[in-house]
Amino acid sequence: MTRNHGPSKELPLTDDDVAAPSHAERARTLVAGERTGALGTLTDDGFPYPSYVTFALFEGDPVFLVSQMASHTHNLEGDDRASLLVSEDVADDPLANGRVTLVGRCRPTDAVEVREAFLMRHPEASYYVDFKDFGFYRLAVDRIRYIGGYGRMSWVEAEAWQAARPDPIAESARGIIDHMNEDHADALVAYAQAFTRATWAERATMTAVDRFGFELSVETDDGPRPARIAFDTPLVEGPDARAAMVALLKRARAQLASSQGEA
Amino acid sequence: MTRNHGPSKELPLTDDDVAAPSHAERARTLVAGERTGALGTLTDDGFPYPSYVTFALFEGDPVFLVSQMASHTHNLEGDDRASLLVSEDVADDPLANGRVTLVGRCRPTDAVEVREAFLMRHPEASYYVDFKDFGFYRLAVDRIRYIGGYGRMSWVEAEAWQAARPDPIAESARGIIDHMNEDHADALVAYAQAFTRATWAERATMTAVDRFGFELSVETDDGPRPARIAFDTPLVEGPDARAAMVALLKRARAQLASSQGEA
Repeated sequence: MTRNHGPSKELPLTDDDVAAPSHAERARTLVAGERTGALGTLTDDGFPYPSYVTFALFEGDPVFLVSQMASHTHNLEGDDRASLLVSEDVADDPLANGRVTLVGRCRPTDAVEVREAFLMRHPEASYYVDFKDFGFYRLAVDRIRYIGGYGRMSWVEAEAWQAARPDPIAESARGIIDHMNEDHADALVAYAQAFTRATWAERATMTAVDRFGFELSVETDDGPRPARIAFDTPLVEGPDARAAMVALLKRARAQLASSQGEA
Repeated sequence: MTRNHGPSKELPLTDDDVAAPSHAERARTLVAGERTGALGTLTDDGFPYPSYVTFALFEGDPVFLVSQMASHTHNLEGDDRASLLVSEDVADDPLANGRVTLVGRCRPTDAVEVREAFLMRHPEASYYVDFKDFGFYRLAVDRIRYIGGYGRMSWVEAEAWQAARPDPIAESARGIIDHMNEDHADALVAYAQAFTRATWAERATMTAVDRFGFELSVETDDGPRPARIAFDTPLVEGPDARAAMVALLKRARAQLASSQGEA
């Protein structure tokens, strides 16, 4: 999930039941899209201690390559309770950024699959992975807190987290958004007029896209307001977006022409 | 402190005793330059729980405007032990980024100065600051962990943290670095030849600048290596950088001419 401004705190122009990723999928997509986070551990005297870490996901659990010299490693040796906070950094308004906190116990592992998953995500780590004071840890995720920005938050069930997969179009999202905003302002206005309550819309910006649909920020007299529009069917991969957008535009224009005929 | 690549993990081309900001000053500068961080609190069952927060600094302590509905507020009501992690996001290599963890007890405050400090840093919060479920907290900093990237780390004394001031040229640093790299590649090479062990340097990039001096990444046959060069006297404000750079360049060229004369 990529967006310019995050979910708005303003009243939406569409209903809540437009098809959208589950919070589990949104959380999983967000975490899969980042490589660093804040690992919370406990100091000897029981203070929570977040440190900056690199991580990879392995079977839904964050895995870390840590130095024996690091504070968090010392802390984990004393108490394995831990959490990882992963945040986006895409919105101008900081609190519109999505973030996920993964809570569980974090323990050493020498599973070769963990090593492979970490090095695939962090090839730059290959030069120190075999230093003898470095080792892998795995945080067994037990509780998941998802905050998608204003008014979009929940505790995600561990089973739902484990089952969820990152949105397959997440890596294409930025390109789709930029393309639509730069070259297809007219289509965005047509979507807004046909599929949201802003039938008089004159200006709309795409803020997010996922396999189920996309989000607009529509200019109104009361300022920008968000809207969500679903694709006819969920996309399987990024390149499907073009045909889905064209099909929606055709439907939007037919609907606008028909309602003009009625007027 | 602003830089492209952070302190390198490679062997430096200058001695360690070149004038530089203290770790207290570096940490204070880094924290003053950011507006968001990871606030670590403790869950009811004692797990460390980092959440994404906005903060401002007030007399060296981070202050927060939090909702009664937020997990961290619930956690702080149960246990006031807390930490704030603040990280830069400037380096391509994530572990070259600087970061600071501030540890202490975090308690509610209704001091009007805290409110003012927070709103000055976060004017966008003015629309919810008076909502009745929002209130201010202040983290009384007791321990300070500074990691400036590879091989630059320490625990900073609380007194040193409180006494330190952010580098007065921090806000100009990005502009100075870009200007030198774009328009004065020849000067950077002269500095490298005259003031570092790379007397044969042909290419150097400025990676950081602070009131005491600047850092170069110098191309060598073994890859890039870092160097630090001090100004003749510490700068008082950003605009002083130009004269200081020119003075150093004059000295570098004189020194290079004299050593060529000797050869």
